[in-house]
Amino acid sequence: MPHAARLASRARRRVRSIRRMTRFAPVNEQMDEIRRDAVEVIPEDELARKLERSARDGRPLRVKQGFDPTRPDLHIGHAVSLRKLRTFQELGHEVIFVVGDYTARVGVPTGGSAPRPRLSPEEIDENAQRYAAQAGHILDVSRVRIEYNSRWLAPLDLAAILELTATYTVARMLERDDFAKRYEEGRAISVMEFLYPLMQAYDSVALEADVELGGTDQKFNLLVGRTVQERYGQEPQVCLIMPLLRGTDGEQKMSKSYGNYVGITEPAEEMFGKTMSVPDSLLNEWIRLAGTWEGAELQEALALAAADPYRAKRALGRRIVALYHDAAAAEGAEAHFDRLFKQHAAPDEMPEVTLTLTDAALRVQDGGAWLPGLLVAAGLAGSNSEAIRLIEQGAISVDGAKLTDRNGRVAANAGGTAVLQRGKRHFARVHFAE
Amino acid sequence: MPHAARLASRARRRVRSIRRMTRFAPVNEQMDEIRRDAVEVIPEDELARKLERSARDGRPLRVKQGFDPTRPDLHIGHAVSLRKLRTFQELGHEVIFVVGDYTARVGVPTGGSAPRPRLSPEEIDENAQRYAAQAGHILDVSRVRIEYNSRWLAPLDLAAILELTATYTVARMLERDDFAKRYEEGRAISVMEFLYPLMQAYDSVALEADVELGGTDQKFNLLVGRTVQERYGQEPQVCLIMPLLRGTDGEQKMSKSYGNYVGITEPAEEMFGKTMSVPDSLLNEWIRLAGTWEGAELQEALALAAADPYRAKRALGRRIVALYHDAAAAEGAEAHFDRLFKQHAAPDEMPEVTLTLTDAALRVQDGGAWLPGLLVAAGLAGSNSEAIRLIEQGAISVDGAKLTDRNGRVAANAGGTAVLQRGKRHFARVHFAE
Repeated sequence: MPHAARLASRARRRVRSIRRMTRFAPVNEQMDEIRRDAVEVIPEDELARKLERSARDGRPLRVKQGFDPTRPDLHIGHAVSLRKLRTFQELGHEVIFVVGDYTARVGVPTGGSAPRPRLSPEEIDENAQRYAAQAGHILDVSRVRIEYNSRWLAPLDLAAILELTATYTVARMLERDDFAKRYEEGRAISVMEFLYPLMQAYDSVALEADVELGGTDQKFNLLVGRTVQERYGQEPQVCLIMPLLRGTDGEQKMSKSYGNYVGITEPAEEMFGKTMSVPDSLLNEWIRLAGTWEGAELQEALALAAADPYRAKRALGRRIVALYHDAAAAEGAEAHFDRLFKQHAAPDEMPEVTLTLTDAALRVQDGGAWLPGLLVAAGLAGSNSEAIRLIEQGAISVDGAKLTDRNGRVAANAGGTAVLQRGKRHFARVHFAE
Repeated sequence: MPHAARLASRARRRVRSIRRMTRFAPVNEQMDEIRRDAVEVIPEDELARKLERSARDGRPLRVKQGFDPTRPDLHIGHAVSLRKLRTFQELGHEVIFVVGDYTARVGVPTGGSAPRPRLSPEEIDENAQRYAAQAGHILDVSRVRIEYNSRWLAPLDLAAILELTATYTVARMLERDDFAKRYEEGRAISVMEFLYPLMQAYDSVALEADVELGGTDQKFNLLVGRTVQERYGQEPQVCLIMPLLRGTDGEQKMSKSYGNYVGITEPAEEMFGKTMSVPDSLLNEWIRLAGTWEGAELQEALALAAADPYRAKRALGRRIVALYHDAAAAEGAEAHFDRLFKQHAAPDEMPEVTLTLTDAALRVQDGGAWLPGLLVAAGLAGSNSEAIRLIEQGAISVDGAKLTDRNGRVAANAGGTAVLQRGKRHFARVHFAE
């Protein structure tokens, strides 16, 4: 069984532990593994040289991945890079998680973006452990080296910081996309923000990193690392730029702050449901980056996506649940989804509400209740105005039929019932009484 | 005798010591003294308020002046600000020299401009004393507080520096004239250079400076001080922008590095001679800023400059020598100058050189020596090519007549002499021998 095929086969199983390889695989095989799914390897020839030297000297490469301790929860977008780190582990290299605890500890302002919270050392530790535990779904964290960057950032004095800031020019800093855009638009960039990429670069100096991984939005910062390492007399790191998985909205990169993410510890039903909500236009991207299929299986999944996106999405949903839970959970989640959505049927269990026809909110007239008042009385809307908005947005169905008239009426007779539905998942069964 | 007149009268005498005034003069009188010759007071109303409070509370203002310990020698351009500081002393306020020892001590690179030398603590002390001793020609250094900025800069850690850099935006930093120009022209500005104005501003925070003095080229940095002090919850300093004296070249500001300066410890003859070399277009500026005349005397000097620039320049030369030496030295320097230049005569004493007519360098032919070879043999040029360049530049005279022909010949007979002159001041008397 050739090396690459063996790796692919192993990748299909959930990782529990990864045996360290005693010898390094041939450089070209390693290159193939590392390059797969990567957007860019900057530069490839340096990576090949590093791998050759590593194999010759029996010294694993140091592969760096940063982690923001104020955001300890992993989503399936993070998994793209973590899976690549696992590949490095399988190839015998050393993975280092750099916990960016320094700024979290000192709680400095962040200028343009949202302020970062200030965390206690205990909170930082807790978050690092939470991150490592979740990362353990994907790679062997027992073999990951975890470093806190306050170890080398806290002792820096002004002289050292002047030296660091002398390595980079203002003009090159302003080439970073977000800086360029903000500068162009006259939005404030504080001088402090120029120090962040340099601090991240200094992490690479402190660790003598051989490789740093990051998403396409990190490319600039990773390249700063190369320049700064060189100025400190080190061989520059290779930047391995990984694709960013877009979130369920189909627009932004997946992120907790955009509310478009699938957390790797979410319940199976949520995972499946969120995957089914992904727009068809993202299906190939998700199959490649979140599905983790390889070879013939990948081709099959992509072919299905082209032929029947709905079935392909279901297969992807099962796949994702199976990766982070197991096959049984995947089946259960799919069945749950079908009850809720596929059969367009109300679930077996839903809140039961009894309303009297004399309830003023219902405004019963000629045997019909006023729909907005009914929704509020049934607990599906907080106010008449919210109810009207929901109706006009097409979010309301009664007995399976969508109603969009804000003055719509629902047959209301003593002893009768109606199933009200708001959006895809919120139901109530109303019983009318005298 | 009104206060201002008393001050003006005292200003005419060379300062030896300044008695501390026990009470503060009225604010409007202080304002008049401070504003005189200043380019800008930013902002005037805040200065008035500070002076009022100072008088009310009996608390002197803290007036800050920076000093670069790698450049300990004062020239008469520096004297403009120092004289203003002396006014503050006379008004009862506290003058603080801030020795920028931190960067000199750590010897960081400077990016765009020339690298600053790294100095030992002993060298820094020595230079600070040299500076203070020279400043003692102008103000009472026994009452100046001398502070080394490493006292507050050395203890800063990265967190404190991030906080400092968060106070200022990149866009505002790029508004500084030299940064704007370099950025525009695509010349490098290192991120480190953005930290220097912030460090200077932090000096003001550490000292809780009420006023900072600086030349027009320091205006930006002084204003940064205001912003940063405010961000640190302090009342911002008033910026007192002083005019820059242009150097003897009539172009650049006076500076040792441009070689266009008159040092305050230079010999009287040098001072007088350099003053006479100032272009007429600068005469008014020099009379105002270097002459230190006031009132009617100033008007007289300016009137003379309009009527007879040459006589006015001589008066200014005497004045400057008298300020930094004494009246006798001024007379002697003027007489020396007249011998050298006014009478267009060679000085009484000059090197005497005896050359034999058979000296190959002279290429004697038909009783004439080759001029370039003659200049080299007489020690006025280092090589034939330098000699030719000097001749073609019109820098060479023989017996008082300028020669500009590179193949010019000088009568050379045994027992004869010739006075060679290079530029204004280098002479040699050649005796020809068999």
